[in-house]
Amino acid sequence: MKILRERILQDGRCLEGGILKVDSFINHQMDPNLMKQVAVEFIRRFADLPINKILTVEASGIAPSVLLGYLLELPVVYAKKKKPSTMQEMYVAEVRSFTKQRDYTMVISKEYLTPKDHILFVDDFLAYGNTGLGIIDLCQQAGATIEGMGFIIEKAFQHGRELLTENGVFCIESLAIIDSLEDDRIQLRK
Amino acid sequence: MKILRERILQDGRCLEGGILKVDSFINHQMDPNLMKQVAVEFIRRFADLPINKILTVEASGIAPSVLLGYLLELPVVYAKKKKPSTMQEMYVAEVRSFTKQRDYTMVISKEYLTPKDHILFVDDFLAYGNTGLGIIDLCQQAGATIEGMGFIIEKAFQHGRELLTENGVFCIESLAIIDSLEDDRIQLRK
Repeated sequence: MKILRERILQDGRCLEGGILKVDSFINHQMDPNLMKQVAVEFIRRFADLPINKILTVEASGIAPSVLLGYLLELPVVYAKKKKPSTMQEMYVAEVRSFTKQRDYTMVISKEYLTPKDHILFVDDFLAYGNTGLGIIDLCQQAGATIEGMGFIIEKAFQHGRELLTENGVFCIESLAIIDSLEDDRIQLRK
Repeated sequence: MKILRERILQDGRCLEGGILKVDSFINHQMDPNLMKQVAVEFIRRFADLPINKILTVEASGIAPSVLLGYLLELPVVYAKKKKPSTMQEMYVAEVRSFTKQRDYTMVISKEYLTPKDHILFVDDFLAYGNTGLGIIDLCQQAGATIEGMGFIIEKAFQHGRELLTENGVFCIESLAIIDSLEDDRIQLRK
């Protein structure tokens, strides 16, 4: 996805610890037009899948997911990182975040994830794959089927794709794949 | 906004403590088409304002904001409720949440809120007005101008509008106004 690759090279910044900072257009300030183009590219890549629901995690997955849901006319559910006081029956997964160096709990109400659901999970980053692993856990608890997972940016050198594949997700698409952030250089796969 | 009012009456649920649960279509599972209609209604109501940026707070304000930003071709910034380890220079506001009964810190990077900005703040709920107060604080620190605030649902009996007006925000629009949730009945203003 050329426009995304160019934007990453232009506005992305390498930080210590294998972090790519894209908070000027993806996960703090957002470019809604780029998010729409990301959504269209996900539609192309997952064209053959029988999806009935988009699943994401708060907060940075919501923007591409809601534009995708809008274009596909599908509901979007976002997993919450804190249990709301108003939620009664829920699925819970513990997630280890290496990037943010803290663990967190992910919850989804039992009302909005069921055995009838064929899920496309969407998020901004695929790094070590632990958020995806939590989503697999939640979907297994609910009896929902994960049809695919789509990420805006994959940091291939953190091997999340391998972890997700080992856990049964085979349809994984990333719109930009980064092979290395060493020496402050963003090396994008061609 | 008829379609929103009907949806609230059909799918909203009253909980104790003046809480209206709308997590089947606004703030857990989301209806992206309704969010687009909400965005269009905000465009109508704020048609005369010189806005150059949409501001919101994670997580439930992101969906209407990104669709609004997409339609208006404007950037969207969401305030974060935790300081990211990668953020260096930021504005910080302390927010008291009565609805969730916990206080939190709201941060925005100094890069994305500046004296040049004319802000439309968008959120799902106007309740006691404390989130809006935090946004006023952040914008004052940055020297940004708040042109207006738009909410999907206002709980008028919690008087947030008065608090925001006292603090200098006069252009406030809510797409559905609730006068009471007493006796498990949603009383919508006509």
